[in-house]
Amino acid sequence: MSHPLIKKVAIVGGTHGNEITGVFLVRKYEQYPNLIRRDSFEILTLLANPKAIEEGRRYIDADLNRCFKAQDLQNPKLINYEQLLAKQLAFTIGQSKINLIIDLHSTTSNMGLTVILHNNHPYLLGLAAYLSTINPLVKVLQYPPNQDHSYLRSLCELGFAIEVGPVAQGTLNAELFLQTEALISSILDFIELCNQAITPEIPKTFTLYQQVKAVDYPRDELQQIRAMIYPQLQFKDYEILHTGDPLFLGFDGEVIDYQGESSIFPIFINEAAYYEKHIAMSLAIKQEVTL
Amino acid sequence: MSHPLIKKVAIVGGTHGNEITGVFLVRKYEQYPNLIRRDSFEILTLLANPKAIEEGRRYIDADLNRCFKAQDLQNPKLINYEQLLAKQLAFTIGQSKINLIIDLHSTTSNMGLTVILHNNHPYLLGLAAYLSTINPLVKVLQYPPNQDHSYLRSLCELGFAIEVGPVAQGTLNAELFLQTEALISSILDFIELCNQAITPEIPKTFTLYQQVKAVDYPRDELQQIRAMIYPQLQFKDYEILHTGDPLFLGFDGEVIDYQGESSIFPIFINEAAYYEKHIAMSLAIKQEVTL
Repeated sequence: MSHPLIKKVAIVGGTHGNEITGVFLVRKYEQYPNLIRRDSFEILTLLANPKAIEEGRRYIDADLNRCFKAQDLQNPKLINYEQLLAKQLAFTIGQSKINLIIDLHSTTSNMGLTVILHNNHPYLLGLAAYLSTINPLVKVLQYPPNQDHSYLRSLCELGFAIEVGPVAQGTLNAELFLQTEALISSILDFIELCNQAITPEIPKTFTLYQQVKAVDYPRDELQQIRAMIYPQLQFKDYEILHTGDPLFLGFDGEVIDYQGESSIFPIFINEAAYYEKHIAMSLAIKQEVTL
Repeated sequence: MSHPLIKKVAIVGGTHGNEITGVFLVRKYEQYPNLIRRDSFEILTLLANPKAIEEGRRYIDADLNRCFKAQDLQNPKLINYEQLLAKQLAFTIGQSKINLIIDLHSTTSNMGLTVILHNNHPYLLGLAAYLSTINPLVKVLQYPPNQDHSYLRSLCELGFAIEVGPVAQGTLNAELFLQTEALISSILDFIELCNQAITPEIPKTFTLYQQVKAVDYPRDELQQIRAMIYPQLQFKDYEILHTGDPLFLGFDGEVIDYQGESSIFPIFINEAAYYEKHIAMSLAIKQEVTL
């Protein structure tokens, strides 16, 4: 495997101010920098949205992690708090010559330790395969690659997010915190090995989930939610869904079944921040990727 | 058992805007009023903090559920959003001649279905005993009775809160939603029976937890949190704690043990909204109460 030399890595927490696993991890790394020190590259730690962190909110004016489209960063008319902050962060990441971004998120869904890629760069696929082998809790998810990306991680070709859950917004779950810390350590080890031209032991194939669509809550004529995630579907992220399986339970008692194709996998089930985005869950297909 | 005649009950949701179990229950009751209709009394449903509900936040300026001290309600200098709202709500509850308040909350802690009383009124103790018998998931918790109460429920002598959890802020958990709905139905049944002078079947004794103290997170010299809830203590609300049991895991790896008296019960472990109140958990003693 050929691979780029990584000279500088950014570890970012608090892109969403109420996802505090990443916030406290970054603070820990800033207090104990030896934990993330490696010989062949530098690390920049960043708390992306300090004001939102201070207020314990996802964002102040707008979701920061939707403010990084190239055209938006260049648009002088976009001046709400997060739009300005995105420009500042893009400048900082650029100035610091960051080669790779690890953006730390958490979710109320049972996403375990999910690594989210948004392109097919062989380096990222290799990293994902490596992490899948080391820790069976790791899942690799890919968003549709040809979207116009608005995520912080898209500031870098080698950018990705880590989503850990389930954990309530504004809380730390020690077990998930420790697992996330171990995952980051493995990522840094991989970079170190590649930088030293030592090919890490990587399996020839690994499992990749491809997000294919989002599913909204059933709504009434006033656009109010009229159903909840079906009780037995709660926390069943990455478990196969078949045609006819119940998805929602209406406030009127109605059970609403899944009507699409079989062999699809629900993810981000009941993520708190997605209610306002009209997403009750997303659906993904499962693939075996050969490197 | 002698008991007062209840003519009007308030069911309140959204006292905290991001505890949406109560919000959606109240909306459901407003859409299907037959669910809560009883012959002998009227019901007023209320969404206490619509602006916070709209924004998906606990509060806008201050915790509404700490704004109801009698002296604060009469203080014309207290004019932030929730302080004004509290005065309006106190007026509404008073004008409506409410005899009993059910204030609906949720928590990220594993509090199950907890009924929180703040006085020893025999009617409330009888209700608590009744609910404990009907549903073994019900826990009855009493806050110290001689505090100067700042809670919405203290607008009424017969006021109490229901705390359901664990559920992440901003999400609905269908199973807990249905359990809360069934609990409210049992409460209304109890009131109906008492109003009709039919003595409900109540056991002679029931279990009451008395909150005795709050425990803060370990903090550094800058008052920053330096530890998390110990992994094995997470979600262990109402499970007995012994001297020497681990409470916290420091970011530096240190395990911090419980040093107080044995036979105490931790509650509200890792409640998101209590980080800012400097409460990692509360401790309660368990009592058998004889009616």
